[in-house]
Amino acid sequence: MEHANYGALSPLTFIERSAAVFPERTAVIHGELQRSWEQTYERVRRLASALRGRGVERGDTVAVMLANTPEMLEAHFAVPMVGAVLNALDVHQEARTIAFILQDCGARVLLTDTEFAKTIEKALALLPSPPLVIDVDDPQGGGGEGLGKLGYEALLAEGDPTFIWEPPPDEWEAIALNYTPGTTANPNGIVYHHRAAYLKAVSHVLVWGLAPHPIYLWTLPMFDCNGWCFPWTITAMAGVHVCLREARGEAVFEAIRRHRVSHLCATPAVLNALLAVSVERRPGKFDHPVKVMAGAAAPSAAVVEGIEAMGMEITHVYGLTEAGGPAAVCAWHPEWNARPREERARLKARQGVRYPMLDGLMVADPHTLVPVPKDGRTIGEIFIRGNTVMKGYFKSAQATEEAFDGGWFHTGDLAIWHPDGYMEIKDRAKDIITLDDEPSSSLEIESVLCRHPAIMEAAVVARMDEELGETPCAFVVLKPDAANVGATEIIEFCRQHMAHSMVPKTVVFGELPKTSTGKVQKFKLRAYAWRL
Amino acid sequence: MEHANYGALSPLTFIERSAAVFPERTAVIHGELQRSWEQTYERVRRLASALRGRGVERGDTVAVMLANTPEMLEAHFAVPMVGAVLNALDVHQEARTIAFILQDCGARVLLTDTEFAKTIEKALALLPSPPLVIDVDDPQGGGGEGLGKLGYEALLAEGDPTFIWEPPPDEWEAIALNYTPGTTANPNGIVYHHRAAYLKAVSHVLVWGLAPHPIYLWTLPMFDCNGWCFPWTITAMAGVHVCLREARGEAVFEAIRRHRVSHLCATPAVLNALLAVSVERRPGKFDHPVKVMAGAAAPSAAVVEGIEAMGMEITHVYGLTEAGGPAAVCAWHPEWNARPREERARLKARQGVRYPMLDGLMVADPHTLVPVPKDGRTIGEIFIRGNTVMKGYFKSAQATEEAFDGGWFHTGDLAIWHPDGYMEIKDRAKDIITLDDEPSSSLEIESVLCRHPAIMEAAVVARMDEELGETPCAFVVLKPDAANVGATEIIEFCRQHMAHSMVPKTVVFGELPKTSTGKVQKFKLRAYAWRL
Repeated sequence: MEHANYGALSPLTFIERSAAVFPERTAVIHGELQRSWEQTYERVRRLASALRGRGVERGDTVAVMLANTPEMLEAHFAVPMVGAVLNALDVHQEARTIAFILQDCGARVLLTDTEFAKTIEKALALLPSPPLVIDVDDPQGGGGEGLGKLGYEALLAEGDPTFIWEPPPDEWEAIALNYTPGTTANPNGIVYHHRAAYLKAVSHVLVWGLAPHPIYLWTLPMFDCNGWCFPWTITAMAGVHVCLREARGEAVFEAIRRHRVSHLCATPAVLNALLAVSVERRPGKFDHPVKVMAGAAAPSAAVVEGIEAMGMEITHVYGLTEAGGPAAVCAWHPEWNARPREERARLKARQGVRYPMLDGLMVADPHTLVPVPKDGRTIGEIFIRGNTVMKGYFKSAQATEEAFDGGWFHTGDLAIWHPDGYMEIKDRAKDIITLDDEPSSSLEIESVLCRHPAIMEAAVVARMDEELGETPCAFVVLKPDAANVGATEIIEFCRQHMAHSMVPKTVVFGELPKTSTGKVQKFKLRAYAWRL
Repeated sequence: MEHANYGALSPLTFIERSAAVFPERTAVIHGELQRSWEQTYERVRRLASALRGRGVERGDTVAVMLANTPEMLEAHFAVPMVGAVLNALDVHQEARTIAFILQDCGARVLLTDTEFAKTIEKALALLPSPPLVIDVDDPQGGGGEGLGKLGYEALLAEGDPTFIWEPPPDEWEAIALNYTPGTTANPNGIVYHHRAAYLKAVSHVLVWGLAPHPIYLWTLPMFDCNGWCFPWTITAMAGVHVCLREARGEAVFEAIRRHRVSHLCATPAVLNALLAVSVERRPGKFDHPVKVMAGAAAPSAAVVEGIEAMGMEITHVYGLTEAGGPAAVCAWHPEWNARPREERARLKARQGVRYPMLDGLMVADPHTLVPVPKDGRTIGEIFIRGNTVMKGYFKSAQATEEAFDGGWFHTGDLAIWHPDGYMEIKDRAKDIITLDDEPSSSLEIESVLCRHPAIMEAAVVARMDEELGETPCAFVVLKPDAANVGATEIIEFCRQHMAHSMVPKTVVFGELPKTSTGKVQKFKLRAYAWRL
């Protein structure tokens, strides 16, 4: 029996409404392909119905190895419509990792883009009982042979476009299972639930002040923490999903111009891709407002400046997969616009305050959970709590319990708390370097390095020195058009701008190793520094 | 023990965040008085703490007889902060009704504006054990003597500005109790809960595409269904509450201009007050966007035109107290802007589609609950379901059960469903007139009448005629500057624009009796027509 005054909070309700109210509005653009909300909703119901027909039941897992395509968007609705859990694979992962994940989550079905067929083929070969494989052959994709016996469109043809789906009986049911890129051992499965996904999706509307019908460009991979829940947000607002398989700089500019894109999300990798386009080939200033939500690392002053010079406004967020994406936002005070350029950038680089609809955020002592003073100096761990925090770690009650110890989720990230209540990350716990017996933040050193006119990116790790103990070792990437500079010059620059104990003793030039979501893999740098 | 991944959905969380993130931003403006979010949050905590000190416990009721003042806003947070239920009284009600309500809800405390002291004094005299009375002496108010021994500011002085409040242990706990204006017998108490209030407050952000820091003018009484939950919405967005005791036309224009008001809500009474200002004294076009949410009755084409000529954009909503305010919205399709003026007005006069975050809305047969065809002709009852529907009727499990029969809330309003899924009210159930054995809608006749250039408002009811059976009887209000027109001319106008059976046989000139929320009291007109 249905209730007159209760319904499970689920982002599935968004697509039903948008298709009913705005059936003819464009929902998806992919290259020359355009589909309306009515068409998209029909395809979603076909997919749900076909998956059900192929035996997918409530609680099963359906994995996808897809780029930012219409099929990926459809899966975000169709899979939970049959009560199943979506496992979106990081397309950059190795076959071995993928095999581990498919095995661990027990995927019943795998939708896979032919471009990734080689990796998937290797992964499937490692599995004792592989899932049903459905090939997605995207004309925009990089080719590749199909692996399974069934293509995506053939699967849809099995489905009923009027399939009647049911919301989850309990809003705490799992909707997605995401594995965090492992840096050492196997990746962790993170379970997200309908209630959290619903509220997180809506909270973005509050942060951006999203008007109906935003035009959203998929620069952020949808496999990255379900695109921070934006597949659901943009659908709730009956917006347009502009798909993009790869966020290359010029392709992004072209899409923004052509479709009058109003919003996009960006990891540092995306921002760097935009800034890697030479100034002559950049668009100048767009003639319509473009908002960029930037996460995964604080944008440097240079990045903020470069991006905003193109008329794009950056909202800086901090988050993690366990929070379904952003958990903090550098909520902007309009009066800050009057501050000097450098101060604006400094204010914007802070991770800020709790995201709307998150119940609590604090910087506290990791052992006592006592908040640190808001003095802009004392380092503590970031803790969050609320409905938008994950359900828990997959198949690991103990890990969940530890992560939730004391009624707060332990992020493992370190920050200071400024007097105005805005926090600023001072590094992941392991990125603290002990200099002269004082814990120092590698991020602080990096931030100074990035102010050097020739430096585009910098990462600092500790290097063991038998005489001096830990010393800072800097890895720097120079700007493409930068004049040649040497280590001595950079060290000299640091001497002028930071405490002497913090000045890097070693400077290495070259590319930075990164995860597919754009985070610098410091463990690799540490290993490298060790061997120097 | 608190949970890392769960918190009760409660609008109380909004004020804590806005005060923490934007402590110095203006929260409230009332005449020359301005208070920041930090100050407002402190006053709210003082009030909560003082109420607790005076014995108010979880589950108790606190009544308020207040205009749209800072105290009224404060009560919307402070009362639920101690787990109590807010009962906001309609300030236009008679002493007898108020006495009934205070008795029925067992109010422990009553906050009352001295302007309403005479009514309250009479009401209190009817009570065997009156509540603790706190006088609110607003310098902007109309004077009047205090009734109690304690003033509002003295009560605040008893409270602790750092009072630590707890969210409700269960998000289904009551937050407010509103009595609907009775047309015949005693009013009904309607219980609203935290989860509903939270979601309804947020759903307005989606409908209006509300950017952070809206400047909201309180033209809608906060006692009307908790101001449709906007005390919580505007607070969530760290906006400005511009208070206004009375929504007189010129005062509204002045406030919009002076404070650059971006949003306001309006009942027909408010819209009429604006249009009653002569054209010479109107503001012309405001030099900033102003959005008006109009509810309680469909705005006529003339109203839409008159309001929008001033640069104010109308969003038409339909709702009822049982839904905490709007339950449907005439969601606007941008391409409709290109339609001819008359068609635009016709489209906008429709009540539309389900509000975001409401789970279902249908027009259906009241007995079988089978949806009527979307043919723009068949009349059915409007049914809604979802989290934003009330908890139930106060102390009346049977009434609640009946209203929720079949898993839908029965609104009692009749509508047709257009082929595009937008519904249009064809009248409250009892406003259907049987003409030539066909049920006809008085609203349709009214809509034609309002197109007459001299008519400002019209209401039509059935009048018994011994020979003809039911015949339409029209009550019309002429525009202040209208030329004199007689009944014959109006009847002639109707003959040209509607089926002959629908043409009113009787036309009465004069004011229309209305409830304090601006709904025409048709039962009074029917009684009048009967005696003609």
